[in-house]
Amino acid sequence: MIILVDMDNTLADFDAAFLSLWQKTYPDEFFIPLDKRRGFHLAEDYPDHLLDKIQKICDGKNFVKNLPPISGGIEAVRELLDAGHDVRFCSSHFREYKNCITEKYQWIEKHFGKEAVDRIIMTRDKTLVRGDLLIDDKPKISGLATPTWEHILYDRPHNRQITDKRRLAWDNWRDIIFA
Amino acid sequence: MIILVDMDNTLADFDAAFLSLWQKTYPDEFFIPLDKRRGFHLAEDYPDHLLDKIQKICDGKNFVKNLPPISGGIEAVRELLDAGHDVRFCSSHFREYKNCITEKYQWIEKHFGKEAVDRIIMTRDKTLVRGDLLIDDKPKISGLATPTWEHILYDRPHNRQITDKRRLAWDNWRDIIFA
Repeated sequence: MIILVDMDNTLADFDAAFLSLWQKTYPDEFFIPLDKRRGFHLAEDYPDHLLDKIQKICDGKNFVKNLPPISGGIEAVRELLDAGHDVRFCSSHFREYKNCITEKYQWIEKHFGKEAVDRIIMTRDKTLVRGDLLIDDKPKISGLATPTWEHILYDRPHNRQITDKRRLAWDNWRDIIFA
Repeated sequence: MIILVDMDNTLADFDAAFLSLWQKTYPDEFFIPLDKRRGFHLAEDYPDHLLDKIQKICDGKNFVKNLPPISGGIEAVRELLDAGHDVRFCSSHFREYKNCITEKYQWIEKHFGKEAVDRIIMTRDKTLVRGDLLIDDKPKISGLATPTWEHILYDRPHNRQITDKRRLAWDNWRDIIFA
C-alpha cells in the first residue's frame, strides 16, 4: 500500500509546541488548552487581535524543526516501512514558507534519516497525490481531483465532531489500517 | 487539463547558470559547452575529479533563486493558466536540500507571484502526482506508479537521443500541447 502521512498534528505535535511556546512568550495572555481546541487552524480558535503574535511564533526560526513527535508515530511509520508499505510524508507549506519548508525536511531527516527525505511530498493539494490511504488530522481535504486514497482521520481534539471517517491514533493504528 | 511543469532545465536555465558560474569561478578549468551536454546530470558529463566543485556551485546560496528563466517559459505558463488549465510546478529537491527547496519557492514567487507558490509540488517521485501532461527534460521518469500523465520531453541538448516521446520547446509549445 501507498500510505500518505501528514506531518503537522499527525506526526509532529504542532499544537503542543505552539501552546508551550505561547505560554512561555506571553505568560499572562489568553490561551486554549490542548483538549479544548475546536478549529483546524489556531486562527479559528483564538481571537483576531492575537493572530499576528500567533503567526509569528509558528513562522519563527526553528519552530517546525523542533516540533516534538507525537508519541508512537515515528515507530508506526518505521513498522509500516519495514512491512513493505510505501509511506510518503505528505505536507503543505505555510503561507510564510521561508523557514517551514526546509525545516520540515530537517524534521524528517532528524527522525527518519537522510534517505527518508526522498519520501517527502510537499503540496497544497493532496488530492493530486496518489495513494491508498491518507492519514491526516484535517477534517476535510479537498482539491482539484477526486482522491485515490481513503482519508483516515488522525484523531485530535479539534476534529472529534467528524463522524463520517475512520479515525486513527498512533496507539491503535494497526487495528484501523489493517481492519 | 492538469499540466505538470518541471523547473530545472525546463523553466529555469540550470545548465546555463551553472556554466556561467563555473567559468567565472574556475576560468582555466575544463568545461562542456551547453550544446555538447549529453547526460541528464552534470555528473554524467564532467570528470569525477571535478564533481565536488560542481556540487558546491549548484548547492550554493542563491544559485537556484537566481536561475534565469528559459525564454518563453514564463509566458507559456501564464497563457496556459489564463486559458483555464491547471499548471502545477513539479520539482525534485537536490540531495543537499538546505538552499534549494526554499529558493525554488522563491523562484516561483519571483516569476509568477505569491499565489503561484501554492502550485508547487515538491516530490522525488513524479509518478505519484496526477496530471494529464508532464513537461520535463528528464529522458526517463520512473517511480512507484504507472503515470497518469503523458511525459512530453522538454527539448534540451542532453536529451536529443530520445525519440519515443513528444518533444516541446517554449517556442513551439502550442503546437505540441494542443496537437
